Amino acid sequence: MGANVSREAEERPLLIETRERLLEELTRSSAGGQTLALVPTMGALHEGHLTLVREAAARADRVAVTIFVNPTQFGANEDLDTYPRDLAGDLEKCAEAGAWLVYAPRGPEEVYPEGFQTWVDVGELSLGLCGGKRPGHFRGVATVVCKLLSLFRPQVALFGEKDYQQLAVIRRMVRDLDLGAWTEIVGVPIVREADGLAMSSRNAYLSAEERRRALSLKRGLDQARALFEGGESSASVLIDAARSEIEGSAKIDYVELVDADTLQPLVVVDRRACLLVAAYVGKTRLIDNQVLHVQG
Amino acid sequence: MGANVSREAEERPLLIETRERLLEELTRSSAGGQTLALVPTMGALHEGHLTLVREAAARADRVAVTIFVNPTQFGANEDLDTYPRDLAGDLEKCAEAGAWLVYAPRGPEEVYPEGFQTWVDVGELSLGLCGGKRPGHFRGVATVVCKLLSLFRPQVALFGEKDYQQLAVIRRMVRDLDLGAWTEIVGVPIVREADGLAMSSRNAYLSAEERRRALSLKRGLDQARALFEGGESSASVLIDAARSEIEGSAKIDYVELVDADTLQPLVVVDRRACLLVAAYVGKTRLIDNQVLHVQG
Repeated sequence: MGANVSREAEERPLLIETRERLLEELTRSSAGGQTLALVPTMGALHEGHLTLVREAAARADRVAVTIFVNPTQFGANEDLDTYPRDLAGDLEKCAEAGAWLVYAPRGPEEVYPEGFQTWVDVGELSLGLCGGKRPGHFRGVATVVCKLLSLFRPQVALFGEKDYQQLAVIRRMVRDLDLGAWTEIVGVPIVREADGLAMSSRNAYLSAEERRRALSLKRGLDQARALFEGGESSASVLIDAARSEIEGSAKIDYVELVDADTLQPLVVVDRRACLLVAAYVGKTRLIDNQVLHVQG
Repeated sequence: MGANVSREAEERPLLIETRERLLEELTRSSAGGQTLALVPTMGALHEGHLTLVREAAARADRVAVTIFVNPTQFGANEDLDTYPRDLAGDLEKCAEAGAWLVYAPRGPEEVYPEGFQTWVDVGELSLGLCGGKRPGHFRGVATVVCKLLSLFRPQVALFGEKDYQQLAVIRRMVRDLDLGAWTEIVGVPIVREADGLAMSSRNAYLSAEERRRALSLKRGLDQARALFEGGESSASVLIDAARSEIEGSAKIDYVELVDADTLQPLVVVDRRACLLVAAYVGKTRLIDNQVLHVQG
């Protein structure tokens, strides 16, 4: 019995709720020479997050997961207050996926202390797409990720490719601020439900009927990809194909076809590109994307 | 002879001109368990800088000095092109002061690679004083210092108190972005010439006659401090005392009396305060400051 309890205790990740305690654990771990992989999340973990944790575990001795619904990346009219939270469930999942430590700050003041006034801004990459629709969003993302990388000093940090623009912004920020000297940023492919819906914590908002309509995003991307693979390279034709699949099922926020690296709009797909969609299904804003690879 | 040559070679700091080579040396040094102190400079080193290096040497196994005239902290009409440069002399001085390594990037592109677009902004602390007079200056400072701290990961970094607002901005940035979890920021008191002029690389611009007029800044601060120590606590009286000492000798950019921590203007000196002055002597812009300590 005693042995079981102690084994169970070992398998559970350390739950840390203050910056001070976190630094103690990180100092001890790095003194022990353990390498660290970081998976920053906003909690309400799903299979997409757990894929990040498992991939992280394959890349370092220890995996730290952060769970923080970061207020600075939400706009005034967005869903900060209703964003799904499930710490107990998240801890179970982190344990199963092999996390060593979970940092869930007990409040925003652990992250943004009194007098906080420093912001990290990434330029052109933040302007369009979700950045255009959600002013200040990527400033909040870049700032909190910069902080987490400075605090944890991981050898590697992992992010999902569902948030395609976010990943591009983070890669650029990490390179520009020299955090990349010591930390590798790894993007992990989108994980989808059996029917194709990209996994997202916000899928929990959807009613059964909205859940069906939400599939139109993936159908739209598939439609455009099929055309592209059939030889179509006009951005407007590909965008229209996606739009007409989505319209009627969801309220389109944007559908854009951009250079996969610079995120600048393309007229013709003559290089690696990404088709990105954001749309409202009811009140829920969903995003998805599809990279298009040019042959030869 | 051979022994002498090799001893000399050992005493000279390593001169590193590329980011890639720097990372090799830093990786080796940290693997060897050596602690590191960082002294960021723009070169044209004087006794103020060397005091930083000596203080740094007392606080860590190894001292790294950076010499980089950072273009992003200069305004369009400022002295980027004429800023004094003397790498050979700087290396001599760094050797004497005990530096282990000097990082002098061979060009701005080592620091700001193609596509660079990430900026660190500190809010209220950057708005007034030099920040008000030199728009974008502290964005350039905060960004480059953030980069250097991320790159070098020193246990301690040292800055002169002559650049009082800069030090406040850096302390805040380091706290806000969690760089302070691993790096201590140390401010070192102003080093002055025998006649009281605060040491500055820009003093090299001054003619003999301007050099005499430049002394008015320190005289103005002394005048105000004497009044303050005599019981005067009205900010406007103290500011006027400084101004009337400086006027006639230099063109005042600002004289302000602020809370020593928040840099917000004070009406009455009822807490630790700082009197700051910026003034042009000919075309040369000089700054100086005096902290005022409230007793009891």
